[in-house]
Amino acid sequence: MSNRDGIVIGLLGVGTIGSSVMRIIGERQRIISERLGCPIYIKKALVRDLDRSRDVDMSRLTTSVADILDDPEINVVIEVLGGENPAHEYIARAIARGKYVVTANKEVMAKHGLELLHQARENGVDIYFEASVGGGIPLIGPFRQDLAANEIVSIKAIINGTTNYILTRMAQSGTEFGAALRQAQELGYAEPDPTNDIQATDAAYKLAILATLAFRVPVRPPDVYREGIDRLHPRDFQYARELGYAIKLLAIAKRIGDGVEVRVHPAFLPNDFLLAQVNDVYNGVHVEGDLVGKVLFYGQGAGPAPTSSAIVADVIDLAQDLQKGVANRSVFKPNSALALLPMEAVRTRYYLRLQVADRPGVLAQIAKICGDNDISIASVIQKEVSDLAPFAEIVIMTHAAREDHMRAALVAMRLSSSVKEIGNFIRVEGND
Amino acid sequence: MSNRDGIVIGLLGVGTIGSSVMRIIGERQRIISERLGCPIYIKKALVRDLDRSRDVDMSRLTTSVADILDDPEINVVIEVLGGENPAHEYIARAIARGKYVVTANKEVMAKHGLELLHQARENGVDIYFEASVGGGIPLIGPFRQDLAANEIVSIKAIINGTTNYILTRMAQSGTEFGAALRQAQELGYAEPDPTNDIQATDAAYKLAILATLAFRVPVRPPDVYREGIDRLHPRDFQYARELGYAIKLLAIAKRIGDGVEVRVHPAFLPNDFLLAQVNDVYNGVHVEGDLVGKVLFYGQGAGPAPTSSAIVADVIDLAQDLQKGVANRSVFKPNSALALLPMEAVRTRYYLRLQVADRPGVLAQIAKICGDNDISIASVIQKEVSDLAPFAEIVIMTHAAREDHMRAALVAMRLSSSVKEIGNFIRVEGND
Repeated sequence: MSNRDGIVIGLLGVGTIGSSVMRIIGERQRIISERLGCPIYIKKALVRDLDRSRDVDMSRLTTSVADILDDPEINVVIEVLGGENPAHEYIARAIARGKYVVTANKEVMAKHGLELLHQARENGVDIYFEASVGGGIPLIGPFRQDLAANEIVSIKAIINGTTNYILTRMAQSGTEFGAALRQAQELGYAEPDPTNDIQATDAAYKLAILATLAFRVPVRPPDVYREGIDRLHPRDFQYARELGYAIKLLAIAKRIGDGVEVRVHPAFLPNDFLLAQVNDVYNGVHVEGDLVGKVLFYGQGAGPAPTSSAIVADVIDLAQDLQKGVANRSVFKPNSALALLPMEAVRTRYYLRLQVADRPGVLAQIAKICGDNDISIASVIQKEVSDLAPFAEIVIMTHAAREDHMRAALVAMRLSSSVKEIGNFIRVEGND
Repeated sequence: MSNRDGIVIGLLGVGTIGSSVMRIIGERQRIISERLGCPIYIKKALVRDLDRSRDVDMSRLTTSVADILDDPEINVVIEVLGGENPAHEYIARAIARGKYVVTANKEVMAKHGLELLHQARENGVDIYFEASVGGGIPLIGPFRQDLAANEIVSIKAIINGTTNYILTRMAQSGTEFGAALRQAQELGYAEPDPTNDIQATDAAYKLAILATLAFRVPVRPPDVYREGIDRLHPRDFQYARELGYAIKLLAIAKRIGDGVEVRVHPAFLPNDFLLAQVNDVYNGVHVEGDLVGKVLFYGQGAGPAPTSSAIVADVIDLAQDLQKGVANRSVFKPNSALALLPMEAVRTRYYLRLQVADRPGVLAQIAKICGDNDISIASVIQKEVSDLAPFAEIVIMTHAAREDHMRAALVAMRLSSSVKEIGNFIRVEGND
C-alpha cells in the first residue's frame, strides 16, 4: 500500500462517534496534513441507511461495505460500528486487503484482539485501538510503549463511566440503585438496556484488553471474574462513609507470583487512595510497575470528542509509519511463564454486612464461623437498635482472607440460626 | 547507522540514574532483545573518575568521551550527566555523528531542545527525552502522540517533587518553611543547595518543555514567570484549610485567544480539584484538550527507577525505528499564530492576607483600593483579636482580576496608613 496519495480513509459507521471523527478530520485537515507532510481525507463512510439526514457530507456515504474494503486507494479503515458483528468480519477483511485499521471496538479487541494483531503482522499492516479503552485517556500507548521497561505489578481501574456515575449519585445523595440508574438514563449516561454496564461486561472487555497488554498473557472476557453493581444498597454507602471508604466498580489485574488475577467487582477503596476521588463519568486507571512505581491516568472515558481524540491520534500515529512504509512497531510477545489465577485463590479484605438475631452470643457464633474458615476479623460495628426491632445489623471488616474461605464462611453463616440475612459482602482494595 | 549489530549504547554518566540504567538493561537484556528482535547492550559508560568503586561492570567504564562519541559501533547515546554543560555539547556531537540520543536532561532540553530536534532531523536521527519531565510518568509521549489531535487549552502541573514534599509537610503538620526544607534534605528529597527547586527554576525548565510541545510555540526558561515557595507562611496554610484549598507550586501554561501564559508560582487549589490531592514527592499533570477534555497524569516525578523506566522505554521506542531504518516520527511544527503573553496580562483570582490597623474604617479603605483598581472582592475573613493586639489580620479572596491591577492595588495598600504589612498574596487556580 503506497502513501503516494496520502492517507485515504474509509469510515465504518457514522453514528455519534463516526460523525465526530468526520467533522474533526474535516476541520483539522490542513493542520494534520502539514504535520504528516501528506494529504489526509475520508473518502467513503459506511451507513446502514442513506435516507437519514446527517450533519456530514452526504456525497461520501455508502451502504455497501465493499465500496470501502474493495477500494485499493483507501489505505486506512476506521471502525466505529461497535458490537462484535459485523465489525469483526469487516476489520479482518480490511487487514486481509492490506489496510491499516483503527478501531474503538472493545468487544472485538477483547475477544479477537490477539488474532487481529497477528493477522495485521502477517499482512504488513497494523491495528490501532487506543479508543477501545478509556476514551481519549492515553492507555494503550503507555502500555505498549511508555511502560515497556516495567514488569507490571497491578492495574486497578475505574473504566466504566455509567456505573461510576451511578455509584457517585448513590454515595453523594443516598439515592437507591434503581433511581440512580434512571437519572443516568435520563442524562444519556446509561443506555435504555444498561445490562452490559451494570453487569460489568463492558468493564471486563476493557480489563481483558489492558491486562493482555500489561502482563503479556492472553486474557479473554470469560477469564475475567465479574460482579455487577445492582446489589449495592444505600446502607453500604453509609457504612463506607463512616469507615472512610468509597465504593467503586473496580477492574483489577494483579500479578501474584507466576499468576495473574483478573476480576471486576464493586470494591471499598480508602478515601486517601486517589482512585476513590474519581467521580461522575470520569475514569481512572492506576498502574503499578516495578520501575515506575504507581502512576494514575485520569479523564473522560467516553463521549464522541474524547473518543475521536484517540482515533485521530491513532491515525496520525499510523500515518507516520505508513509514510515511511513500515509497520508493527510494537509486537505482542506473550510471556508463557504466567498463568491466570482462579477467583477462589484471590486474597482480599472483606466488608460484610449481616442482619442478625438481637440476642446474646450471636457475635461469638459469627466470630467462630470466621475463625473456623481462617478469616481474621479486623473490626466490627454493631449499632444499638430499638427494643422493637427483632434484628440487629453487624458490619465486619476482615483482614486479608482467601475467597474460597470467605465463600465457605458465607455458606456457614446462611445456615446459622443467628444470621437472618447476608446484607452484602464487598471486597476491599487498598493503594498497595 | 546500521542495526546489523543491534542496539549498541554509550552511556554518559554513571551516577544514581546511570547505574540504575546499566543495571536494568543488564538484567532485562534477554527480554528486551526478544522484544526488539536484535541484541541490545551498553558498550561503554563515561565516568569522571575510574578509581571510585561502583556497583557496575567496571571494564566498560571510560573517562574519555571520545571513546563513546567516536565509536562507530555505538548507535545510541544515553545522557544522564545533568546540567547544561558539557551535556549539551556531548549531545550535539553525538547527533552530528549520526547517533540517536536519549536524555533525561531538562535543562538542556528546555534551553536547546528545539535546536537539538532540528539537528537530529538534519542528521536522520532522533532525540528522545521522556525522562526529562515527570520521571516515569508518560508525558512527552502523550503530548507528541496521544493528544496530537487536540488543541491544548491548558496545562496545570505539580512537577517538582522536592517542593511538593515541603508544601505537604507545611500543610499537614503546620511546619515552618525552613524546618520542612531541612526535613526534605534529611530524607534526600532536597539537595544541599536547594535553590533550583525552591525558586521554581526546575519546574520552569519542565514547563518550558511541556508548553513548547503542547502549544507548538517555542518557550524558553526566561519566558516563564517564576515565583518560589519560600515566602509561604504556616498562617497561609491555616487559612487555605479553612477556606477549602490546598497550596501547591503550580506550573501553568494556558491558551487565552492567540496568546499563551506560562508561569510557575504557589497557588491555591480547591480541595475537589484532583491536583490538590497530589501529595509528598508525587507529581501530577492536568491537561485540558478541546477534544479529550480534562486528563490527569500522576506518579513519582523523580528517582533512579522511575527515571530509568522512561529512559529504557525511549530506547525500546527508538530501537524499533533504528531497526527499520527510519527516524523523526513526530516532527515539531511551530504554530506561528500564537504568542507568549506577559505576566501583567494574566487574570486570576487572588488570596490576600493583610496585617491592618485595628480601627473602624480600615476595611472600607481597603475595599476602596480594590474597587479603584477594578478588583472585585469575593469574600473577607476578619477574626476577632484580643484588645491587646495592636493589629488585626484580614484575608480577602478576590474575583478574577488582572495581574497589573493587583500589583497597582498592592502598591496603594503599602502606602495606606491602614495597612501595616502585606502578609502574602497567592493566586488561585480552579479546575476550569
